[in-house]
Amino acid sequence: MAPTQLEIKVKALQRLVKEEGFYQQELKDQTDYVEKLRKDSSVDPYDLKKQIEVQQDTERLLPTLYKKIGEFKENLEEYLKTYQGNESLDDANKIIEEADNLIASQ
Amino acid sequence: MAPTQLEIKVKALQRLVKEEGFYQQELKDQTDYVEKLRKDSSVDPYDLKKQIEVQQDTERLLPTLYKKIGEFKENLEEYLKTYQGNESLDDANKIIEEADNLIASQ
Repeated sequence: MAPTQLEIKVKALQRLVKEEGFYQQELKDQTDYVEKLRKDSSVDPYDLKKQIEVQQDTERLLPTLYKKIGEFKENLEEYLKTYQGNESLDDANKIIEEADNLIASQ
Repeated sequence: MAPTQLEIKVKALQRLVKEEGFYQQELKDQTDYVEKLRKDSSVDPYDLKKQIEVQQDTERLLPTLYKKIGEFKENLEEYLKTYQGNESLDDANKIIEEADNLIASQ
């Protein structure tokens, strides 16, 4: 069955929120690892520098992602304002709230 | 126990190769989804356009990642040339081969 426009918009936002969770976990793991290497005086400076670069590469992804989460969320909210259908809005409201929390935590 | 320099370099490359697998899976899922939306004439052009943008955002990550995989691989290979320790080189050789395959598939 073809997805409804509501389903497409909800799924779009859910997908980005899931991605954000993944990137944040990656970033946390990498930040912890860099800290561990920093504390170890036997670590080669080149290796430490390279791991900091990996951390920065992940950090660099986040602004674009938050911008897009905001955009998709606003589009879904706009759509709901004039929505006349009978579908449940539970998933839509839930993901809008999650997106709001993510953006607020920035 | 502090990681050895060999362990750090092997882990660095393993981490990037794992990331590459994740991004490629994301990209495949998103590409399939865009194709599905494209075939559905009821899909709103805005929604399709936005999903193509998400696909492109993921695609845009890959060149930096492949460049870094190549760099980390070469650094590990250089290190092995003069390595005099007693650690097993199995993990190192395995991840170098995986990295070579990824780069060759580009």
